[in-house]
Amino acid sequence: MAVKYAKRMDLFKTSELGDILKLIEKPEIISFAGGLPASELFPVEEMKNISVKVLDECGEEALQYSSSQGYLPLRKHIAERMNKKNQTNVSHEDILITSGSQQALDFAGNVFLDEGDVVLCESPSYLGALNAFKGYQPKIVEIETDKEGMLPEALEKALKENDNVKFIYVIPDFQNPTGITWSLERRKKFMEVVNEYEIPVLEDNPYGELRYEGEYLPSLKALDTKGLVIYLGTFSKIFCPGYRMGWTCASKDILSKFITSKENSDLQTSTISQRDISKFIDEYDLDAHIENIKATYKKRRDVMIKCMKEEFPKGVSFTNPHGGLFTWVELPEQLNAQELMKKCVENNVAYVPGGFFFPNGNKENYFRLNYSSCKEERIAEGIKRLGQVLKEAIRESETVDLEV
Amino acid sequence: MAVKYAKRMDLFKTSELGDILKLIEKPEIISFAGGLPASELFPVEEMKNISVKVLDECGEEALQYSSSQGYLPLRKHIAERMNKKNQTNVSHEDILITSGSQQALDFAGNVFLDEGDVVLCESPSYLGALNAFKGYQPKIVEIETDKEGMLPEALEKALKENDNVKFIYVIPDFQNPTGITWSLERRKKFMEVVNEYEIPVLEDNPYGELRYEGEYLPSLKALDTKGLVIYLGTFSKIFCPGYRMGWTCASKDILSKFITSKENSDLQTSTISQRDISKFIDEYDLDAHIENIKATYKKRRDVMIKCMKEEFPKGVSFTNPHGGLFTWVELPEQLNAQELMKKCVENNVAYVPGGFFFPNGNKENYFRLNYSSCKEERIAEGIKRLGQVLKEAIRESETVDLEV
Repeated sequence: MAVKYAKRMDLFKTSELGDILKLIEKPEIISFAGGLPASELFPVEEMKNISVKVLDECGEEALQYSSSQGYLPLRKHIAERMNKKNQTNVSHEDILITSGSQQALDFAGNVFLDEGDVVLCESPSYLGALNAFKGYQPKIVEIETDKEGMLPEALEKALKENDNVKFIYVIPDFQNPTGITWSLERRKKFMEVVNEYEIPVLEDNPYGELRYEGEYLPSLKALDTKGLVIYLGTFSKIFCPGYRMGWTCASKDILSKFITSKENSDLQTSTISQRDISKFIDEYDLDAHIENIKATYKKRRDVMIKCMKEEFPKGVSFTNPHGGLFTWVELPEQLNAQELMKKCVENNVAYVPGGFFFPNGNKENYFRLNYSSCKEERIAEGIKRLGQVLKEAIRESETVDLEV
Repeated sequence: MAVKYAKRMDLFKTSELGDILKLIEKPEIISFAGGLPASELFPVEEMKNISVKVLDECGEEALQYSSSQGYLPLRKHIAERMNKKNQTNVSHEDILITSGSQQALDFAGNVFLDEGDVVLCESPSYLGALNAFKGYQPKIVEIETDKEGMLPEALEKALKENDNVKFIYVIPDFQNPTGITWSLERRKKFMEVVNEYEIPVLEDNPYGELRYEGEYLPSLKALDTKGLVIYLGTFSKIFCPGYRMGWTCASKDILSKFITSKENSDLQTSTISQRDISKFIDEYDLDAHIENIKATYKKRRDVMIKCMKEEFPKGVSFTNPHGGLFTWVELPEQLNAQELMKKCVENNVAYVPGGFFFPNGNKENYFRLNYSSCKEERIAEGIKRLGQVLKEAIRESETVDLEV
């Protein structure tokens, strides 16, 4: 067959990660690879009540087409929550409802990127975002990032060196994959650079409300004086992901472009799902629900950190995140986390190799662990298995060193 | 602010149609402009039962992330229904669930189109599809189309003249905007040309099951011997649009590219919505539901056609569709349907001017009428108002002719 695809499809021909994820789809494997929220915490009973109520009160409207920008009462809830939680000053007019925040990542590419344009991001950065951008064929430039966030000097250097930077993509709260949260000082310095160069910022914040200790910091959007920050939020981690409900908050002109993308790509997000979630916020206490999630995830994080301290060999370090779903493990440089996956699968434990989170590759001595979706005993057992793999790998690599 | 957007955004700067649609958002206006299904026919009570049942039986799974390709039992239902209704021979492995079929139109652009590639389509064609493709910056070439469908000779000529045609977009059943259905003979000849040139075909079929008279014809997909036809279906018109549930059926290699688009654009379609619709098909009789819709829409079509015959002046013609939601009105060449909208709004009646459905413009003496969303008395009253506008316009244009 002579079917010819678009050039961008060549960029997605092989999926090494897909192959790995298939390999670990066995019940005997304790997987820390996913990013799933704990389904036992989902508000199933509440949603039964809500779904009946919504259909009772406005069934015909709930099943009909509706606006591309999104259901007004839900947008009002979101603006109000953002102003309370993220220290912003936004209104429902600044909000577009999207199918999860993944869709807004795709829209960012659609709105800003011509082939060859530059996107700046943290190093490492979120794989799903990098894939969404990749289809628009930009050059993705990693900016040096430390435990307080992106380095403003490195950012400024990149902005001087590249004259077609279209936006900067960052996850300042409990980053995926590292779990790192930017300090307040770093947020301010970052926004100074952004304001000087007037470059849009995509602030992806799926985990910000899941803080287990320390104080909530203002979002970049809260520090945004020039309307440059495009804030992405989602109900996937604080409520549940099955409805695919996220949002974009941006200044008027930018938001209008995102709405155009929405119209062209799928017209609107599910009417009934928007009404269901809005009604849940009307009738129940979403904040109390989030406190419940946080209590569970904090325990799981604590168990994972404690076990890693006990079971991982010297030379292996990891982040201790103050919130979110992930910790990030650094191996001695001679180890390759992707190669180690074979042994992990033999030992019935799994992670995501870190190399996938570096858009330009070449850093293979990292991996990402998720602790939100595993019960505590399984976390302890999984980390024990992982510790054995790591100890053996380090022993072997040292033997090789000696032989050399 | 120095924000620079992608070039494709320049193509969507003004929305003349958006301006018109805003103008007619008044309750006193009888609007035939939309394409809404009749919300009084939505299965509200049934979905109350279903949503409780789904959450009772598998609440945690229904609210969690799920596969990008879509919920297996729903894909099985769809394949089975297609084989029964569309005379195809497909399986659940050939099906991807999308957020309405609009999303699949966008994916077609993403999968096939580099800037400057050629898309062939009927003349006129569906506005929402043209907008979805436009973002990928192709050249859209209209192929002459008559009352039996796209002309095979004209198609072949275009294929000879353009060496970078990536796909052909068609709506063979009760087309939007014209209501025309391709004859069996034409379908066969079309597929002969397609097979010879081995060009993918996007067969968009949102209305096929809504036939009010005559025999169901095989879909192009049923006549596809080379795996070239990409069939797009949706639950929007046969069930309800609020869930945003559509599907793509294609041969393996092509479908794998659509799945990549799905992963990058929004990961997956709503888990709970997929389970709700699948459960509805398990528990209720979707075919009986469709018969009910058809009975109502047939009456509305009959009233609209009858009233147009009575109220429209000589020189105005219109299609009498055997199914679907729309009829297409042709005015004498000297009349401009977009300009006439002013008078329509003054007379509290509205349509979509036909010019928007011609990708290369320049045909302004048409408009599209929808009859599915209006009750019969309102259709009669609206057509009466429209008839007055048309009579007056023709009288005026003839006076001008005499003066010239």
